[in-house]
Amino acid sequence: MKVIIMKISDLGGEFSLIDRLVKKVESDLLIEGIGDDAAVIRWTDDQHLLVTTDMLLDGDHFNTEWYTPYQIGWKSMVANLSDIAAMGGEPMFSFVSIAIPDDMEVEFLDGLYEGMQAATDRYGGAIVGGDTTHGKVLSINIAVLGIVAPEHLCRRGDAEVGDLICVTGPLGGSWGGLELLFKDIREGTTKHLEPDCRLDISSKLAPHVNAMIDVSDGLASEVRHICHMSGTGAVVHHEKVPLHPDAISAGKRLNKDPYRWALGGGEDFELVFTIPPGLLSKVEGFGVIVIGEILPKNEGIQLMKDGESTVLSGGYDHFSE
Amino acid sequence: MKVIIMKISDLGGEFSLIDRLVKKVESDLLIEGIGDDAAVIRWTDDQHLLVTTDMLLDGDHFNTEWYTPYQIGWKSMVANLSDIAAMGGEPMFSFVSIAIPDDMEVEFLDGLYEGMQAATDRYGGAIVGGDTTHGKVLSINIAVLGIVAPEHLCRRGDAEVGDLICVTGPLGGSWGGLELLFKDIREGTTKHLEPDCRLDISSKLAPHVNAMIDVSDGLASEVRHICHMSGTGAVVHHEKVPLHPDAISAGKRLNKDPYRWALGGGEDFELVFTIPPGLLSKVEGFGVIVIGEILPKNEGIQLMKDGESTVLSGGYDHFSE
Repeated sequence: MKVIIMKISDLGGEFSLIDRLVKKVESDLLIEGIGDDAAVIRWTDDQHLLVTTDMLLDGDHFNTEWYTPYQIGWKSMVANLSDIAAMGGEPMFSFVSIAIPDDMEVEFLDGLYEGMQAATDRYGGAIVGGDTTHGKVLSINIAVLGIVAPEHLCRRGDAEVGDLICVTGPLGGSWGGLELLFKDIREGTTKHLEPDCRLDISSKLAPHVNAMIDVSDGLASEVRHICHMSGTGAVVHHEKVPLHPDAISAGKRLNKDPYRWALGGGEDFELVFTIPPGLLSKVEGFGVIVIGEILPKNEGIQLMKDGESTVLSGGYDHFSE
Repeated sequence: MKVIIMKISDLGGEFSLIDRLVKKVESDLLIEGIGDDAAVIRWTDDQHLLVTTDMLLDGDHFNTEWYTPYQIGWKSMVANLSDIAAMGGEPMFSFVSIAIPDDMEVEFLDGLYEGMQAATDRYGGAIVGGDTTHGKVLSINIAVLGIVAPEHLCRRGDAEVGDLICVTGPLGGSWGGLELLFKDIREGTTKHLEPDCRLDISSKLAPHVNAMIDVSDGLASEVRHICHMSGTGAVVHHEKVPLHPDAISAGKRLNKDPYRWALGGGEDFELVFTIPPGLLSKVEGFGVIVIGEILPKNEGIQLMKDGESTVLSGGYDHFSE
């Protein structure tokens, strides 16, 4: 008899893992649980509460060789705030749990919190609580509470057939920077080490857009999330995908295709959203770029390149790559 | 010139570390930030929102040798739910972030979540979201949202001179169990591995008590927290401190003083609260035990034993022990 021991890596992706682990919860208060950038909870008639949480560990999500303490703090916070942006909300309060190795220098920790504070000073979501404890590995968990007006809530599942698919800015810069760091090149890596999120425009987009998601796992992955949750297909036009200057220069330097990073790289923290064509004029002033269209489900999720359609693949998956 | 590099362990205790890291935040919505068992946020006229978060790491807060996966899940959740109990509230929703080593078996993870689910099935606070990611070390962060009626909110700083100090049950069992586990003895360790919290009675106590806190760091430490936040002194009567049967038997077996564990051990997850003497009759039916009294600040924080008063010392501190 063969005993099969399933490893986490056999489960096939973060998506199914979360599905497996969390029971369906029925509650009048819970508008949206697992499966979006943040959970949505009924707050008042005028506002929903958003809750998002992300865990980052030294050696897995950052390291102390490439990142300054400030950058670790900044990026940890921005990654969470970006989830609030993706829901169309505004961050309110943040809770930082941190496990610290015993021999860590206070200066390092001060730098870390300076980075977090700088991010909340810029984007909102003041740090008001948390947990500080021992850990052999520096571990950070941030939970952010945000608010959103019910009519401005942008869920992944709100896309409609005929919507245009847009992004808020150029992509691939983060992953291009990571590829450079792997080669010990520091120039052109700021987009990876110290990314911005799009809370500067997200609440202005929110009243007009249907579905929205942030680019944390790569454009292709985000479009697939929108389609799966909305029950639609989509087409993304390869030549319309905007490349970040850092992606272009890193691509030249390393002789790699920067579109691969834009489609599959992740951590750009731009927003991908869908909008009815008639409302595009409302958001064009924010520098958004139309890259595709939402199609009926039976047309699949396509990448159109040089007049040929292929399946839109790529995108980071925490447990399959 | 001597360069002094401060280590985290030099900072002298979790309390001051959190104070150092978190800026004072002014917000009409924020009733209580750092420094209590949970943050308190204005929700509706009838309810405040409570937020608590705790991080637990393999090798620091639990280990896979002593604990079953179920027990790791159960205890992680109970430790958080206990913070909601300590505020007089009811848990509503939980968010579980987990970083999982690649080679972890799915069966282990299923056990872990079964333990968490069992705790939320028993006490409330359904798991509705979270984050699942890679990590070299199994790391768990749980954030729990709860609710409490404003008039039932029990803060650490609400003790008044003349209040009686009570505990909800016998202490020292958890630490006694830990001492046994260090000696490879498994009998009498359930209180350590699979503790209960007091959500069964906390909301019934809440309308009557002033200050409340849960015993996560040891009775002495909790009484000091209450006194520091309330600007008071206190006296705890040594002979009135109730010992858990597991603490007594472990003490006999190991020839150690179980009162040391009751005062300084932690993780019992009973509640310590203060109540005006005239209201004691309202809560006596819940099996609470009077162990001392709140005094004016200038009388200090005393342990009275055999008619002699000493300073109430002991209690776990995450960065000084």
